[in-house]
This record gives sequence, structure tokens and C-alpha cells, in this order.
Amino acid sequence: MATKPNILILGAGYGGMVTATKITKELGHNEANVTLVSKHDYHYQTTWLHEPAAGTMHHDRTRMKIDDVIDINKINFIQDEVVEIHREENKVSLKNSGQVEFDYLVTALGAVPETFGVEGVFDYSFNKWTVNGAREMKDHIEYMFAKYNNEPEPKDELLTFVVAGAGFTGIEFIGELSERVPELCKEYDIPKSKVKMYVIEAAPTALPGFDPELVEYAMNLLENRGVEFKINTPISEVKENGVILKDGEEIKSSTVVWATGVRGNPVIEKSGFENMRGRVKVDPDLRAPGHENIFIIGDCSLMINEETERPFPPTAQIAMQQAETVAANLKALIKEDKLKEFKPDIKGTVASLGGKEAIGVVGNKKLFGTSANFMKKMIDNRYLWILGGVGLTLKKGKNPF
Amino acid sequence: MATKPNILILGAGYGGMVTATKITKELGHNEANVTLVSKHDYHYQTTWLHEPAAGTMHHDRTRMKIDDVIDINKINFIQDEVVEIHREENKVSLKNSGQVEFDYLVTALGAVPETFGVEGVFDYSFNKWTVNGAREMKDHIEYMFAKYNNEPEPKDELLTFVVAGAGFTGIEFIGELSERVPELCKEYDIPKSKVKMYVIEAAPTALPGFDPELVEYAMNLLENRGVEFKINTPISEVKENGVILKDGEEIKSSTVVWATGVRGNPVIEKSGFENMRGRVKVDPDLRAPGHENIFIIGDCSLMINEETERPFPPTAQIAMQQAETVAANLKALIKEDKLKEFKPDIKGTVASLGGKEAIGVVGNKKLFGTSANFMKKMIDNRYLWILGGVGLTLKKGKNPF
Repeated sequence: MATKPNILILGAGYGGMVTATKITKELGHNEANVTLVSKHDYHYQTTWLHEPAAGTMHHDRTRMKIDDVIDINKINFIQDEVVEIHREENKVSLKNSGQVEFDYLVTALGAVPETFGVEGVFDYSFNKWTVNGAREMKDHIEYMFAKYNNEPEPKDELLTFVVAGAGFTGIEFIGELSERVPELCKEYDIPKSKVKMYVIEAAPTALPGFDPELVEYAMNLLENRGVEFKINTPISEVKENGVILKDGEEIKSSTVVWATGVRGNPVIEKSGFENMRGRVKVDPDLRAPGHENIFIIGDCSLMINEETERPFPPTAQIAMQQAETVAANLKALIKEDKLKEFKPDIKGTVASLGGKEAIGVVGNKKLFGTSANFMKKMIDNRYLWILGGVGLTLKKGKNPF
Repeated sequence: MATKPNILILGAGYGGMVTATKITKELGHNEANVTLVSKHDYHYQTTWLHEPAAGTMHHDRTRMKIDDVIDINKINFIQDEVVEIHREENKVSLKNSGQVEFDYLVTALGAVPETFGVEGVFDYSFNKWTVNGAREMKDHIEYMFAKYNNEPEPKDELLTFVVAGAGFTGIEFIGELSERVPELCKEYDIPKSKVKMYVIEAAPTALPGFDPELVEYAMNLLENRGVEFKINTPISEVKENGVILKDGEEIKSSTVVWATGVRGNPVIEKSGFENMRGRVKVDPDLRAPGHENIFIIGDCSLMINEETERPFPPTAQIAMQQAETVAANLKALIKEDKLKEFKPDIKGTVASLGGKEAIGVVGNKKLFGTSANFMKKMIDNRYLWILGGVGLTLKKGKNPF
């Protein structure tokens, strides 16, 4: 490494983008070559996608051109798909542009849906929490409403919407959809009573990990908008026209949205890292065990919360905090300093419920309704601030008032 | 008929609506009971539907609540579907509300698509030129764009659009769609070169009956927007994923729009009227042959143009003119006066081509581009004026400037 070391960042999600932004501040122009690889030429906010997916926000508000945010004078950008990490050879294979070498690697490839072995998920459900996937969900939902009045006989499954999973994503999505249903009914001349919405959850509670009082608030609110919950009810199969539950019940539906959680990117498995469901239990300094120059952050990293003895959930909040630590540790490696240990600092969690409704915990405080909604928007704006300062916040931010 | 006679109008399209409006002006409140039957509680402008179908206009602009236009103090309105006309018993069966008696009947039931015996039209093509049908086409088209980027391998048929028929409807529809494609490409992150548009016509020319110079103008313009014409090319079958042409060629497409023309409403055939493709060759005073009290107008009526020795095409223009004659003839029957003969007065024909483009003939004058577009909008506004005066024209009219 006589010349400038090559830092390679894989993925332009929360972890990759914040790493890229921070590293250019930590290191001078002559200290390293930094390259960012991403499938798209835009970054998008996964945590906002329930809104365009339900059609309550335009998808362009959830994304930004990468070269509008990162300084392309300081960072090389390659638009390509990562195929495999050759750990021992310090190389990464890309789908279209061959191999790229690295001295230091930051793996921030994000997650893919977890099916838990349920058949039919990839064939018959909407499960892509991406810009393309959200756009498809939205247009599919509208198309089902449009089809309904063109059928010779009423076909109720067209207006039956099933969300698999009452975790964060499932609840935030049904929050938006249930908020939009009255508007869709008006647009398509359909009585609201024809629309059925189900949220089906295998676990014994919706929003596991949330305070029960908040869970109750959310469920009551959603039930009042017409959502029916089936808790403690595993799905055994997704079919072309609905789902079959473990208890044998069949719900006919033309729209099954899969939101039961995620697993790490398959590239992790393919590249031979020791992993649990695509996630690597990283060292305290966020390096992959046995690799001095490979960091893994975000949804592909696994860290145990010592208080609960369970893994931290894969959240944007943690990915961004990890990115800051990684940027500092990259600098430390190059300067031959001591590496930092990563300590997550969970500031709070807020789930939006559509319209002006939300629930959340910030510090020890429980929040409901408009105050939770306010916090949610502030959290969303804070991220934009970290990433692109006041300019990006004004351009893409949410008005909390 | 010692008491007030019952006038029953079937259908709230151009013919039925104008009949209803005019009859209340021709006859005093005490001279007749007038009842209008329509499947929907709104009237819509069939001749505008190519716009919402392609997504260049909101469907609500093409429709109006019936009771916003007709005076419900003077006319009874029944929202129901006509099943059969019992010609000898002076009764009409409705789907939900039983039978209605009449002394005088005005049949203005409109048209249904003509398949010319091609298999698969009703199963696999979009063919309903109604508000519901247009809304479905629009949402389907958008959904195909949304799906494209979610396929693991490019699936070109998603972005291939086939219009069957280069008559008025087919040309006006592809005019709107081709105008909108650049916007759709932008919205869905798709290069414009991926989109294929075909117009397939069995006859030896597009827009049969139009001046060849106008036809050439229209075709050149549409070809410049990326439309490919296949003239003199009958379709032999519509399949789930495209069309098969008579010459054996197969075009794969997820969106086949059927616009090869129409036939009269099936109620005509079911009710035992002598007919040709659902159209009754009416007497010069617009009555059904052999029936003193049954008028048939609009798309279900057939009249021969003596100059060309061919039937007049089913147009809004003729339906409205027939409605005025029928209103006068109903008055004549009740007052025991002499009935008028109907004489069509073709003022001109303008076909829109999307954006500010159109072609047309008004009197002996050929019109192109913006002047034709201007005329088209004036024609559309004139209808609103006839139906609902200045108020409706201002509310629903098109700005020609």
C-alpha cells in the first residue's frame, strides 16, 4: 500500500451513503481512493417506502440521485450489481463491469425478504421494498380497484388486501393503505364496505417489542379504519389468489403484501462468510471475524443486544450509526490508530400509522397521535440533514407541522 | 290513454340525454310522464374516453351526474339495466326493478364492441369504451410500466401496446397514448426505445372515409411518435399475451386494445327486432318498422346514406340530431300531428391525435394541427351547450386556446 489505498463501499442504502459522506470528511483527498457501488444511480429511503407503495407519496420523494448527494470529485461511483466478494483476494465481482480490487471493504448491501420457508411468497406476493417494488404495489392496488367494476359478477378478492406481518413495515404500510382507501373508493366508484384489509401475524402480538399500550392504540386505530387483525396466525402458503393459513382458513385476495421481516443479502452467503440468515455476527469494531480489512454494516450485520440477549433489529438508525463508526475506523486503519468499538445509541422508535397518526417511544416517553407523527417527521428530516445538510433537508424533507 | 302518456327513454348516452332534455321543452309538465333509465347515475361522453383510457385526462371530466343535467322535477330517473323490450306488450324488463310500462319508447341503448368473430377479444383485450373500461385501461397501462423494472429478465411484451383498428377510436386512442409515453417513461425510469406501439387494421387504409391527405398527415405524425402501422392486416386471434395476425405473425403484448368498431346493443336482438348486427333499419321518422310507438336512435339505429349507399357511421353527432327529431315526433304523436322525417346534417368530423394535434373536415375544408384541434374542442363544447347550456359548458368544457 505504497500508493493511496482503495476503499470500496458496496451499497448505497443508509449505511453505504453515510459511510461515503463521512469518509470524505475524515480523510483528505490524497489519503484514499473511495469507490461506491450501487445497482441504481439513486439512493432511496427504505423506511419511507410504505408511503409510495400505498400511493400516499410520490416515489420520487423517497429517492435522490447519488451524485446530487455525494461529491463525485471525491468519490468514484460505479452503477452495477454486486455478485460476489472474494474475501481472500481482496476483489469484488460485479455483474457488468468485471472485478474491482480493494484494500478496505465496507459491505452495506442491505436485506432481502425473509419467507420463513412459506411457499409462493416470491411468485405471488409483493415483497420488494424498493422504489421499483413500491411503484408496482401502488399501481397494482389501483388496477384492482379499476378492474372491480368491470367484472360481470362481483369478485371480492380484487378488493381484499392481505398484509403478511404485523411488524414495523406491515403496520406502516396498512396505516397508509387504510388511510387512502376512502379516497380510492371515491376515485373508482366503489362502496367502502366492499374493501377488506387483513393483517396476519404469526407472533403472539402485533409490533413485537413495542409497549403494549402503544400496540393497542395502533390496533384500535387501524381497526376503526376497517383493518382486521389475525394475530398468532401463521400463513402456510401464498397462492395466486390469496393465502392459506395454518389453521386451514383460506383468504382469497388478489393482493398479498409480504412484510414479515428480512434477511441479509444473498451475496453474504455466496461469498462464504459465516452467517445466520445472511447476517454476519461482526466484531465489536464492525469487522467481519477473521478479516482485518472487511467491515459489514446495516442489515447484513448481526449484533447482540446484551440487555435483551437478542439481536438488534435491522434498522436505518443502527446502520447510520455503524457507518459513522466505520468511517472513523477506516481512518484509524489507514493512520494505524486504534479502532473504536461500536455502541448503538437507540434514540427512539416511531411507527407512522397513516395520515397524522403515529406511535412511538423516544427515550422513556411514549408518544401517540400527532406528537408521535411530529417526531417521526423530525427523525426523517434528521437523516436528510446528516446526509446532505440543510439543502437536502429542505428539498426532500417532510413538513412536521 | 285518457291519463298522461308514459314516455320511456332507455339509455343516457348522447341520444337519450338529448331526447330527455328536449322533450321537457317540447311538452308541458301535464302532457306526459317522462322516465329515463340508465345503468349508471351519470352520463359520460363516449367520444372523449380515449383520453382517460390513455391517462391524459381524468375520467371525471368525461362524465356528469344525470340529475345535475336533467330536471328531476320533470323527469323520473331509474338507475337500472335494461334486459328486454317486450314490443307487443309495451313493457320493458329491468334487471333489478322489474317491469316498466310505456306508451312511447325511445331506445337509445348505445353499442357494444364488434369482434368480427375474432377469438379471444372479450377474454384478453381491453374493449369497454365506458368510464369503468377507460379507468381499467389507464391503470393497466401504468401497471405494465411499473412491472417492467421488477422482472428478473426484460419482458418486452409488458411495454408493447397493440391497438386493433385504425378507425376513429383506435387513432384517437393511440394519439393520446403516444403523446403520453415519454411522460410514462420518465415516471417509471424506462428508456423510450423500449416501448413499442402497433396499430393493426384489416382494411386497406387507416381512418377509412377520411381524405387521404389527412390520413397521411395523421400517420406520419403518429409514426414520428413511434407508432408502427400494420394496414391491410387482419388479426386472427387475441391471446393472453398478444395477437396473431392472419399472415401468421405473432406480436407479443400484454396490452391489446380493441377498437375495430361497434355493433348495436344485444337488447335489440334479444327483444326480437329485425336487425343487422344489433342495428335496426329505422323508418324515416326513426320508428322501428311495424311499431307506431317505438323509436330507435343512436348506435342501435341503421340509416342508409343515399349518396354513398352505405350506412351512416354511428356517431354522437347523428345520435344528437336524431334525438331532436324524436322529441319533436313524440310531441307530434301526442298532439296527433304529422311526424317529421329525419335528415342528418353532417357538419364535419375531427379526429384528435393527442397534444395539440388533430385532423378534420368541416364543410369542404380540410383542417390540420392546431386549427383542427381548435375545432375539435369547439365541437365538444357545443355538445355541452346543447345539453346543459352555458353552465355545463363552463364546468366541463375544453379550453380551445
